[in-house]
Amino acid sequence: MPGAVSDGGENHNGSDIGGSRVPSHCDMDSTSYRVSFPPKKSLFKEFSGAVKDLFFAGDDPLRQYKEQPSWSKRAWLSLKHLFPVLEWGRHYTLGKFKGDFIAGLTIASLCIPQDIGYSKLAHLPPEIGLYGSFVPPLIYPLLGTSRDLAMGPMAVVSLLLGSLLQNEIDPKKNPLDYKRLAFTATFFAGITQAALGFFRLGFIIEYLSHAAIIGFMGGAAIIIALQQLKGFLGIKDFTNNTDIISVMKSIFKSAHHGWNWQTILIAASFLGFLLATRHIGKKKKKLFWMSATAPLISVIVSTFFVYITRADKHGVAVVKNIEKGINPPSASLIYFSGPFMLKGFKIGVEAGLIALTEAIAVGRTFAGMKDYKLDGNKEMMALGTMNVVGSLTSCYVTTGGFARSAVNSMAGCKTAASNIVMSTVVLLTLLFLTPLFKYTPNAILSSIIISAVLGLIDYEAAYHIWKVDKLDFLVCLGAFLGVVFSSVEYGLLLRVAISIAKILLQATRPKTALLGNLPRTTIYRNIEQYPYVTTVPGMVIVQVDSAIYFTSSNYVKERILRWLEEEEERQRQQNFPQIEFLIVELSSVADIDTSGIHALEELFRALEKRKIQLILANPGPRVIQKLQSAKFIELIGEDKISLTVGDAVKKFAPKAVDDV
Amino acid sequence: MPGAVSDGGENHNGSDIGGSRVPSHCDMDSTSYRVSFPPKKSLFKEFSGAVKDLFFAGDDPLRQYKEQPSWSKRAWLSLKHLFPVLEWGRHYTLGKFKGDFIAGLTIASLCIPQDIGYSKLAHLPPEIGLYGSFVPPLIYPLLGTSRDLAMGPMAVVSLLLGSLLQNEIDPKKNPLDYKRLAFTATFFAGITQAALGFFRLGFIIEYLSHAAIIGFMGGAAIIIALQQLKGFLGIKDFTNNTDIISVMKSIFKSAHHGWNWQTILIAASFLGFLLATRHIGKKKKKLFWMSATAPLISVIVSTFFVYITRADKHGVAVVKNIEKGINPPSASLIYFSGPFMLKGFKIGVEAGLIALTEAIAVGRTFAGMKDYKLDGNKEMMALGTMNVVGSLTSCYVTTGGFARSAVNSMAGCKTAASNIVMSTVVLLTLLFLTPLFKYTPNAILSSIIISAVLGLIDYEAAYHIWKVDKLDFLVCLGAFLGVVFSSVEYGLLLRVAISIAKILLQATRPKTALLGNLPRTTIYRNIEQYPYVTTVPGMVIVQVDSAIYFTSSNYVKERILRWLEEEEERQRQQNFPQIEFLIVELSSVADIDTSGIHALEELFRALEKRKIQLILANPGPRVIQKLQSAKFIELIGEDKISLTVGDAVKKFAPKAVDDV
Repeated sequence: MPGAVSDGGENHNGSDIGGSRVPSHCDMDSTSYRVSFPPKKSLFKEFSGAVKDLFFAGDDPLRQYKEQPSWSKRAWLSLKHLFPVLEWGRHYTLGKFKGDFIAGLTIASLCIPQDIGYSKLAHLPPEIGLYGSFVPPLIYPLLGTSRDLAMGPMAVVSLLLGSLLQNEIDPKKNPLDYKRLAFTATFFAGITQAALGFFRLGFIIEYLSHAAIIGFMGGAAIIIALQQLKGFLGIKDFTNNTDIISVMKSIFKSAHHGWNWQTILIAASFLGFLLATRHIGKKKKKLFWMSATAPLISVIVSTFFVYITRADKHGVAVVKNIEKGINPPSASLIYFSGPFMLKGFKIGVEAGLIALTEAIAVGRTFAGMKDYKLDGNKEMMALGTMNVVGSLTSCYVTTGGFARSAVNSMAGCKTAASNIVMSTVVLLTLLFLTPLFKYTPNAILSSIIISAVLGLIDYEAAYHIWKVDKLDFLVCLGAFLGVVFSSVEYGLLLRVAISIAKILLQATRPKTALLGNLPRTTIYRNIEQYPYVTTVPGMVIVQVDSAIYFTSSNYVKERILRWLEEEEERQRQQNFPQIEFLIVELSSVADIDTSGIHALEELFRALEKRKIQLILANPGPRVIQKLQSAKFIELIGEDKISLTVGDAVKKFAPKAVDDV
Repeated sequence: MPGAVSDGGENHNGSDIGGSRVPSHCDMDSTSYRVSFPPKKSLFKEFSGAVKDLFFAGDDPLRQYKEQPSWSKRAWLSLKHLFPVLEWGRHYTLGKFKGDFIAGLTIASLCIPQDIGYSKLAHLPPEIGLYGSFVPPLIYPLLGTSRDLAMGPMAVVSLLLGSLLQNEIDPKKNPLDYKRLAFTATFFAGITQAALGFFRLGFIIEYLSHAAIIGFMGGAAIIIALQQLKGFLGIKDFTNNTDIISVMKSIFKSAHHGWNWQTILIAASFLGFLLATRHIGKKKKKLFWMSATAPLISVIVSTFFVYITRADKHGVAVVKNIEKGINPPSASLIYFSGPFMLKGFKIGVEAGLIALTEAIAVGRTFAGMKDYKLDGNKEMMALGTMNVVGSLTSCYVTTGGFARSAVNSMAGCKTAASNIVMSTVVLLTLLFLTPLFKYTPNAILSSIIISAVLGLIDYEAAYHIWKVDKLDFLVCLGAFLGVVFSSVEYGLLLRVAISIAKILLQATRPKTALLGNLPRTTIYRNIEQYPYVTTVPGMVIVQVDSAIYFTSSNYVKERILRWLEEEEERQRQQNFPQIEFLIVELSSVADIDTSGIHALEELFRALEKRKIQLILANPGPRVIQKLQSAKFIELIGEDKISLTVGDAVKKFAPKAVDDV
């Protein structure tokens, strides 16, 4: 290993440039280096590099093809690329199946009561909820890359879909048209998701910040829980709006005669049971199966109880009828033209994006925990295909929700095959067991949903955000309040708007700082962070902390001039010599545009009038190239471009002193 | 001067922390420093700091009050703050007046024909154009801080206003309502401008990038020049649209019978004269007065010529009648209620913003050239007040245009008083000279406008942008094509949209780079820019080039992992030891949010599984504070936070070698 790390500080000749070494403790000759211009790329190369970075961020799907000369092998690679199941299916073992089988049974017991409840949120018949846990979970494992996501209807998406759809069609008066629009929206949700994946536009969902998602989910959970009060309290007349004020009014108006004590008794006792098992499951990870199976147990016990006591005759609302049989085809029900197609498209895009955000966020979390790679673009195509197929088989928008996937993961799933096990159980239920739900009280479904969505309120995360970043907390709060006090769509809009505003704001006011010298080193650091750094007399050293673009160029120029004025006054009071040099540390300036260069030129002219020389330290590759093309380096002189602040000080500082 | 710069390298004791010195050439003890936590600010202080930075970027208007205890002096300061004229008026001298007087006469001779022409662009009677060069230039000098801006109607704003207004009301069928809507729009344009200044929201106009302005202005100039072909060719039937395709169609349709050769002859010969003087003025700065007075000379000569030959009887269109007398009050004409108020408001906001952008950009250019300070927020209030007063005195939106201000500056204006001189000349014209314009051919006005707007096409700047920054050029081209092929409003929208998209894109994909060691130093630099840097075996050093926010957090994590994989393979090929350390250089990471910290945690976990240690070098004040609040430092261990990359390598690299 020639020229490798030497633990001492000997043999420092200049010949080891090709090799590699740890720098010695005494470095004398950094001034022998000059700022380097990176090799100039052709326009095409530069452009294609940027495009590749945007669309193929984490991976390059074509890379493996290049290394593979044979055509048959390339075809096999392509197939594997399209159907990840071909990869993991080959290594599938009985041991893995055991894990998947148990996990599949567990999520099936959870999903059946949830699906019936969620379909109510979407104002759709209960069997449509169950359909969504039959077909889509069969499609996903073929295409998806996550091992933990469990597919099916999800609370927030159901609520959003229900609230958007009922703006267009009344689900009570026009149930068929409503259903048709729901399938249309599902179809376009799938198309949207698949298209985003296909065109590798996955980065779009990254515009939703973590904080905004926490706030939005918390708000949605409260809204959903409030909606459940209808079933929980046995209220018949309930508002169609989702905001907290309309719902509370609706509840208080019905307080005197609209509440049903039998219903409340059943709902409250089972909610207590569910929350207790949930608490136990959280405390002792081994007992998590209690919380996973508690919903099904509640359904069985309460159904039996209602059947025995005939409580449905005392005002306890029951599910009544769930249609028997598997998903009927629904391709003919989708609007492929006319105004409803457009409406369905709009609703589908919104619901599809939300479903996508949830699934990708959840998928990433578990992939991170188990350390495997989730391919965002493939996930989108998988979810999209799943929803398109779902829309043709009477399902509404499905996705990989957090609660279900967490149970799946904790129950020990090994691959996406647990979805297939769940799907099989749901198939059997649809074929043989639906009559058993006849006496299931609606109240129990409300209790199950309430206990499920309470897990979406992540107040610990909100507190964490508050402690770490106040601005982020504002974003979180804005999204939360938007959902709770207005509507789900408004909350969504607000969440996107706040996120974008935050970026724009931060692009407008980059940070600048004054630097000082760490005594006995050539290191220069922010004087606010390191109060014991020392000033170099006759010099002002300013650091700019982000790219200089048109949004910030004018601000940066003016802020630097203000630092200069402040520092001039401070140094005058200390009887330091006249300021003659302004060093701008550009390490952190990743890029600059023509407005930025323009601002630097203005800065240079303003300094020239005051007889102060402008020195730039450590410009990066893009910056130095643009400064050269713009002839800015000619303007200020090449000797004013310095490799480090330390070099610049070493080179120019003595002059400042000689002049005193 | 204790502890000041020592030119040698002696007396390095630890006691000079309070003083200041140039670092010695041999620095051995940077490892004795640790990354410092900045003093924690209270929530209020942090928030008010951010607000202050956003709204009071370059100045703090309250600063001087704090230093001024007496009430009368504070009142005087406030007055001076509101009326900058009180400041510069006190030092006004006869010498300055001489300059202002000559400049005022020069711009008056330029403005009279221009105003008549511009009012045609806005589909308003010619006297309204002249009104705009009488009242507004009297208001501006009282409030404005620019010494060079010359006020009055401006080509692009006139075109925009005309095209927006005629979408609402037909100026031929309903001239009175049209005029009323124009004054309403002017009123709200003024209110918008003043409000932006009052609430210190001036940073909003910074979202329009230099490149977008160049493109937009070039496109607008072409559109305006094309519009002038109506007068230039003597066409009677002309399209109302502004896009190039409609205009060209209109011209070719009328080619056979609609063109008037006498008109073309007059127009072409005077355009030749104007362009020739413009060329001379550009070549020899001393002869600029030729180009400044050429328009008025053209008007006089051509008017006399038409009067003698009675060419108006041969189809040469003339101005005919300009109403005599000064601005009539127009407060009663403004719509303060009803649907036209809303429309006027919308149009006013758009036109007001464009007028503002132009004036501030022009004002800044000249302030930079003469090195005085332009206060953006005061400018906005001045322009706003001027337009509100203008709307009450029969003016339409006025601003400080580039052409007029350049002539003003070159003619030697010293203060804004040249505006008052110009205004006086326009007053005399309105009172006594309007009948003289009776025989002025429209064609001459077209020639004057064409020669004026040609100066707005800055192809040199466009070429410069192309050379320096390709992405910026795309923005420029987009704005240009939007205006030329669609409409002015669409071009504006496109210009804002492209600008914002550019920021968002760059916030999504920050740059990362692999660093290597400059041999014989402790400096680490980008291996792409400095190809001769050397690798440290067993270590990967990555630098992130911008703040890590939710838009980029996931990308940054995945990109770092990809660097790691690539580098692992490369080092394996070179038989270097297994990689055990990943150093992330955070100098350039100005800020991080909760999503960013989340991504770092995921990175840490992924590295943990591969038995690689994560080291962070030089986190800035905001980053270190947030990492601490989020307990990330506890997670990775405080010894993993290093002051510089060099320190980290020195501390950890030998281990990597010992393990081989």
